[in-house]
Amino acid sequence: MDRNSPIGVFDSGIGGLTVAREIMRQMPRERIIYFGDTARLPYGSKSQDTVLRYSRQIIRFLMTKQVKAIVIACNTASAYALETVEKELDTPIIGVIRAGARTAVRATRNGKIGVIGTEGTISSGIYTDVMKNMCPDIEVTGKSCPLFVPLVEEGLLHDSVTDEIASRYLSELKGRFIDTLVLGCTHYPLIRSTLGRLMGEAVTLVNPAYETAIELKGLLEERGLTNEGAGSAGEKYQFYVSDLAEKFTAFATSILPDEVKETRKIAIEEY
Amino acid sequence: MDRNSPIGVFDSGIGGLTVAREIMRQMPRERIIYFGDTARLPYGSKSQDTVLRYSRQIIRFLMTKQVKAIVIACNTASAYALETVEKELDTPIIGVIRAGARTAVRATRNGKIGVIGTEGTISSGIYTDVMKNMCPDIEVTGKSCPLFVPLVEEGLLHDSVTDEIASRYLSELKGRFIDTLVLGCTHYPLIRSTLGRLMGEAVTLVNPAYETAIELKGLLEERGLTNEGAGSAGEKYQFYVSDLAEKFTAFATSILPDEVKETRKIAIEEY
Repeated sequence: MDRNSPIGVFDSGIGGLTVAREIMRQMPRERIIYFGDTARLPYGSKSQDTVLRYSRQIIRFLMTKQVKAIVIACNTASAYALETVEKELDTPIIGVIRAGARTAVRATRNGKIGVIGTEGTISSGIYTDVMKNMCPDIEVTGKSCPLFVPLVEEGLLHDSVTDEIASRYLSELKGRFIDTLVLGCTHYPLIRSTLGRLMGEAVTLVNPAYETAIELKGLLEERGLTNEGAGSAGEKYQFYVSDLAEKFTAFATSILPDEVKETRKIAIEEY
Repeated sequence: MDRNSPIGVFDSGIGGLTVAREIMRQMPRERIIYFGDTARLPYGSKSQDTVLRYSRQIIRFLMTKQVKAIVIACNTASAYALETVEKELDTPIIGVIRAGARTAVRATRNGKIGVIGTEGTISSGIYTDVMKNMCPDIEVTGKSCPLFVPLVEEGLLHDSVTDEIASRYLSELKGRFIDTLVLGCTHYPLIRSTLGRLMGEAVTLVNPAYETAIELKGLLEERGLTNEGAGSAGEKYQFYVSDLAEKFTAFATSILPDEVKETRKIAIEEY
């Protein structure tokens, strides 16, 4: 395994860019191959079978790029596919759920944790399972928030409609007196300020994108796979999608530190 | 061509069921094979290339069911694929756009028509092209309403949030003094009452699902393809999807006259 190889990062679309952004911030020497499955997004309302099949295709594509590690930067795909695909691969692969769950379990003081995410992530019950495995006494309340992704993608990050919808979604969690809230979908950090204001200062928000970048860093160091930064050939960050919607590049440029100049389209179904 | 063969109807997911419902109402003797591309929905934000490729796969699947006619019950796929696929097929195929456009052109008194739809439908400019072709003096204003589909799928049909979002989307059209509004996405008839209230009584709402069923009826009669109702074998209405999300059956049962008992999943990528 070449330590100067890129890291593969994938998501159903644009949300996983919040994870790529954290990797760029915390490991500025690393190269990244990002794949967004824009032709088949969103994953959040699809079944486990379908999401697993899509994830396997994407992993086969990333392997053609000689990635040294893979990050499933999508909560739904982490929930539905990670456990299966990690058994099929030699290359290290991590999802966004374990790091977020671990941080939440460490952060809670009253043992009551809330998790928000897509229908797929919440109905899989994976955050609950992972957290109860780490600490059986913990009480976890999951709440799916299907409108957050379209609201974020419409750019309504600071808007009365997003406030109203968030207030409805969060009321159940407030009634459970949680003191820690996991943002279990990669889009949600973009409405973090709204969520924080509604939950109040006493509730700790956990961003799995941030925690996952820390976990990745530890993993690469442990295996001697950190990039030495010796000027490797090619672009540092490469972006691939399955559908060339203009939205991707615009959104990527709006949240990443540098402009995304080129996005390449590939036929993911052929992998 | 067997006149007792079924009609193929397809959509990116559930929206096209509003078209199937109109066909059931207007032609109760006809059999229907419905396909919803739930593994790859929505189409509205995807590119023409992708939507055309998906449509071709679905048409190949429907042809294996010996359909006598095909209805593209999706505005985005009608906008992006109909013109190309109708040249490739012997079987008659219609979309939802021409019938809606024709009705709007006939309905308008002041020559100012509004069209609302997905980003794909509106940015394709197809409604404008088709209507200007029918009547060059007409003034058409398109407005994409990307949040309507997720709001409808969340069941917020009568809700203050839907009101607020609709009021924002429609304000531009009100400023243009349109007297006719085309509901250019198959989900929108489900929020027809909200749209009607906001636009006011003086504005005629055109529902292409309804008009398309009328067009289909005329087409079948003209070609001697109407079902004679001689008890044909098998279920009258068959539903196929590419992803077995529970949402499909629940939604179908909520809007169709009879309960949808069975939905079959097929691997659409293999067609």
